[in-house]
Amino acid sequence: MISIALHGGAGTIPRHSLDAVQEAAYRAALAEARDIGFGLLASGATALDAVEATVRALEDCPLFNAGRGAVFTHEGIHELDASLMRGQDRATGAVAGVRGVVNPVSLARLVMDHSEHVLLMGAGAEEFARLHNAAFAGPEYFFVELRHRQWIEARTAGRVQLDHSAPLDEPEPTDVPPAVGAPTIRLNELPNGKMGTVGAVARDQFGHLAAATSTGGMTNKRWGRVGDTPLPGAGTWADDRTCAVSCTGHGEFFIRGVVAYDIACLMEYRNLPLAEACRIVLFDKLLPVGGEGGLVAVDAAGNVVLPFNSEGMYRAWKTSGGEEGVAIYG
Amino acid sequence: MISIALHGGAGTIPRHSLDAVQEAAYRAALAEARDIGFGLLASGATALDAVEATVRALEDCPLFNAGRGAVFTHEGIHELDASLMRGQDRATGAVAGVRGVVNPVSLARLVMDHSEHVLLMGAGAEEFARLHNAAFAGPEYFFVELRHRQWIEARTAGRVQLDHSAPLDEPEPTDVPPAVGAPTIRLNELPNGKMGTVGAVARDQFGHLAAATSTGGMTNKRWGRVGDTPLPGAGTWADDRTCAVSCTGHGEFFIRGVVAYDIACLMEYRNLPLAEACRIVLFDKLLPVGGEGGLVAVDAAGNVVLPFNSEGMYRAWKTSGGEEGVAIYG
Repeated sequence: MISIALHGGAGTIPRHSLDAVQEAAYRAALAEARDIGFGLLASGATALDAVEATVRALEDCPLFNAGRGAVFTHEGIHELDASLMRGQDRATGAVAGVRGVVNPVSLARLVMDHSEHVLLMGAGAEEFARLHNAAFAGPEYFFVELRHRQWIEARTAGRVQLDHSAPLDEPEPTDVPPAVGAPTIRLNELPNGKMGTVGAVARDQFGHLAAATSTGGMTNKRWGRVGDTPLPGAGTWADDRTCAVSCTGHGEFFIRGVVAYDIACLMEYRNLPLAEACRIVLFDKLLPVGGEGGLVAVDAAGNVVLPFNSEGMYRAWKTSGGEEGVAIYG
Repeated sequence: MISIALHGGAGTIPRHSLDAVQEAAYRAALAEARDIGFGLLASGATALDAVEATVRALEDCPLFNAGRGAVFTHEGIHELDASLMRGQDRATGAVAGVRGVVNPVSLARLVMDHSEHVLLMGAGAEEFARLHNAAFAGPEYFFVELRHRQWIEARTAGRVQLDHSAPLDEPEPTDVPPAVGAPTIRLNELPNGKMGTVGAVARDQFGHLAAATSTGGMTNKRWGRVGDTPLPGAGTWADDRTCAVSCTGHGEFFIRGVVAYDIACLMEYRNLPLAEACRIVLFDKLLPVGGEGGLVAVDAAGNVVLPFNSEGMYRAWKTSGGEEGVAIYG
């Protein structure tokens, strides 16, 4: 069975919080990213190529807090984190706190493929990106009016804000033109601040698994804060013997819980099925301590699960077994 | 039982590779750091305070690749990583790629105690450090002649070098004065390049565990490379229910293996004793893929283990059960 599952962030998404146009925009973006990944798998691509392409599509879409749609830091800029992992040999690459990189997930892939390292950060990672001809863009590419308003509001209130936190007012219409290659969803159609980290997992026809995750982090984050997204074992994990996992939520709790690897350990060491391992981690471990979030995961047979302990999670999935869907609310 | 165990790096340390003066200097530094930690535990301090103080002592000693003795990056500077974790509530703090910070482990403690975050990196982490009055020092504090020669050699050869890699020639005598508060070991007494990441684990009289790790990374590292040291679950872990672990070795392999947390999982999910969990991870998992290194660990009862799959590891330990030692070779 070939399978793909992806998320665009989990959080407080009350039912009917999106209007019909907003919901349609999200659903279309999730379905498009899913179909890119599934199409690749169906044509024989590896799981790793499929999750990278899926996450790139989500990074290119201003609706999600990754790549183009990344939230603003305290300094009014964008610092991006991403990682990906190949289940066959547990090779992994990650970047943290990079600026101006159009597709951080593909930079993570370059780290995996073309360095002896796993995790590169900051200006050093950007130097590596330039050496390997990764695409860069100026601030105008990343400037999304809604994100800017979230940042002004969060900065004024002196707080750090999760990307999926409480609603803002309807954003003002704006005439910022969509970047070349970006979806044509107009920014005045953006919903009210509930977006998130993106990620994908896949199983290919060769039985290999892969996972990838990308984020802009928390609105108004400062001090070079890094969440779980670029940390193998925390936000991303893939091992052909057990599962591939991509997480979204309150990163600090996901780091302390080593969430993605914990799911793999529960499967390997306790022989639990994927869904039960995910339930234990999200509901028995994270929920009692306030660790809000969700994840997408696939097991060695290609079964996908998309659980979350928050009100909602932007998500989509498709398998050659006939399962297919797009969903937002709980 | 109160217990402390610490390491000063693992790697290629052939027997008799140190002369008598060098070996005595290492043994004295290891014993001194151990006695600081054990003394605190004996006087009622928490495990967290004990591991922080022990690692600070190792950071202040130019013999080890952390704090003052940190290796040079490709750019000829020092970028420091550290983390620590408290087993009682699995609170954790970490910093990556910070410059000029005298005691990165104490900055990690500040992150844990005074922020909502777990991991801060680079210039942002330094800003946080200044806000909390952490001690900074100029390049002259970190300039250790041996490290500088290692860097020149590695840079000339175009390679990245593990801190415990193959011997260099005996370093030239130097007159660089010891920094205020630094040990009075003269730099011409330094051995030939085999030093490492430092770390400590402890159990206190309250039954709580803690772990801390600090490093300067790899000689001639570039691109903002981050190893396992500042990643909770990879280089450092503490949970009162299972164990506290601090790792040293080839960081990329320790990240991919989520080594510290994997040991805790083998104990929790498979009910293995600490020593057996460590053996599986270091010898069955890491060794076959070339993941050289070691670790120190303590279980909930205070039993300490100090295993390594390399030729040697600088290490020391002491428990109220009467165990005590300092060792270097295998």
